[in-house]
Amino acid sequence: MNFREKLEGAQERNRSLLCIGLDPQRELLPVGDVVQFHRAIIEATQDLVSAYKPNLAFYEALGLEGLRALEETLKAIPSHIPVIGDAKRGDVGPSARAYARALFEVWGFDAATVNPYFGYDALRPFLEYRQKGVFLLARTTNLGGRDFQALYVSTASGNYQLYEVVALKAREWNRYGNIGLVAGATFPQELKRLRALCPEMLFLAPGIGAQGGDLAQAVAGGIDSSGKGLILSTSREVLYATRGPDFATRSRRMAQGLRDQINALVAASQAAR
Amino acid sequence: MNFREKLEGAQERNRSLLCIGLDPQRELLPVGDVVQFHRAIIEATQDLVSAYKPNLAFYEALGLEGLRALEETLKAIPSHIPVIGDAKRGDVGPSARAYARALFEVWGFDAATVNPYFGYDALRPFLEYRQKGVFLLARTTNLGGRDFQALYVSTASGNYQLYEVVALKAREWNRYGNIGLVAGATFPQELKRLRALCPEMLFLAPGIGAQGGDLAQAVAGGIDSSGKGLILSTSREVLYATRGPDFATRSRRMAQGLRDQINALVAASQAAR
Repeated sequence: MNFREKLEGAQERNRSLLCIGLDPQRELLPVGDVVQFHRAIIEATQDLVSAYKPNLAFYEALGLEGLRALEETLKAIPSHIPVIGDAKRGDVGPSARAYARALFEVWGFDAATVNPYFGYDALRPFLEYRQKGVFLLARTTNLGGRDFQALYVSTASGNYQLYEVVALKAREWNRYGNIGLVAGATFPQELKRLRALCPEMLFLAPGIGAQGGDLAQAVAGGIDSSGKGLILSTSREVLYATRGPDFATRSRRMAQGLRDQINALVAASQAAR
Repeated sequence: MNFREKLEGAQERNRSLLCIGLDPQRELLPVGDVVQFHRAIIEATQDLVSAYKPNLAFYEALGLEGLRALEETLKAIPSHIPVIGDAKRGDVGPSARAYARALFEVWGFDAATVNPYFGYDALRPFLEYRQKGVFLLARTTNLGGRDFQALYVSTASGNYQLYEVVALKAREWNRYGNIGLVAGATFPQELKRLRALCPEMLFLAPGIGAQGGDLAQAVAGGIDSSGKGLILSTSREVLYATRGPDFATRSRRMAQGLRDQINALVAASQAAR
């Protein structure tokens, strides 16, 4: 079973396009222990999500102890729910192979986010894990992403913004069908544009909820013609819904609200086609 | 003392622009243990280098054990020699802050390599460590780097290739004077072009030696007007000079040869000005 099949299995089982980012921030934790916190969140939300997405930055900031917490967190995720390693790695040659091995073999992620700046030969070691998903960063969630991603580039087939060129290259390089794109839900117009360029590609859209994306526009712009092909990811809004003792219940309620709202928006978009 | 001062101290003390990449590859190790190997290499070369540069990919591929080996490797480096964390990280907002904390506080690197794709707001958390060096990837060592880096971009001040735009932005964003560029020694023409755009910036040029860079062109193109501003980095050629029992002696000889060759090339370039 490859990543996309596993993802679609979880999407159907939980009727959900929602992904929760498991991003431990010490100063926001409602309990002292990262693993205990994640176990409670996973237990409270595992029937509501299509994927979990730990961002490695937050674990690395906690040192080796943080990486041990990642190891324990991964063990707590039911095996039928895919896990996206949000590592945004990228390097050349043997280093790219080492990162791919780290993410897919050492950590065992089902998919990973990868930075496109190095080009195809550096991407290949990731893609060669054909059962794994590889999400190339196209449009990131931050405003400053425009510094490079929005630049106009001249190509043989006309002028495109850099984030569009990433999408066109992703389509060209997708011989194993395991490439996806990261397209911030915070920029729904760009998400829509990417969908027009890549009608069948899987998109990972972070930034719903706390990062301020307009959910309705992100759903309408991001889904494919069958109402799928999209992972909508949130982190802080669900994880840190409250610091009170009822944090798991509150996270569940928040996740359920988002999941149902997304499903209603998908249904409305499909009906309007 | 900031990174550049520490680097220049080591450059003068060891009369060297050479940096050695400490990149453990299990299948190439002449001894079974990564830490033991690195201790021997560091002992044999510490009077010949201006910096060491561990690439985190190789440690991560070895799992938590690999990261413990990184910890021990860092302890073996004399405190007057700067260490560049070759991590090529990049992310947005709180994640970028987490990566900066991981690299500069948890690992304690003196400098780090960072991917520019996310733009300025994502770079700022790294730059705010004013005593640390932040090397933005401009032109990477691999051929495929051209897929994006060589694209022509239209800007308000004319058409530039993307790697040149990174350099122009780096100059603009360098308010604390701690930005440097990564410019592969494998592409000496691009290195020269970057030097023309950024006459005073510090460059990290990986890819001399085993990666096939033409050393003479890289030195001539990369040094600044005072014959400095350049770190020339090699990994496999020095590290894995042999798998025999005399590996440390052979690594030392190789490092010494490269250092002396670089110094002769710098002197020749300066004389020719």
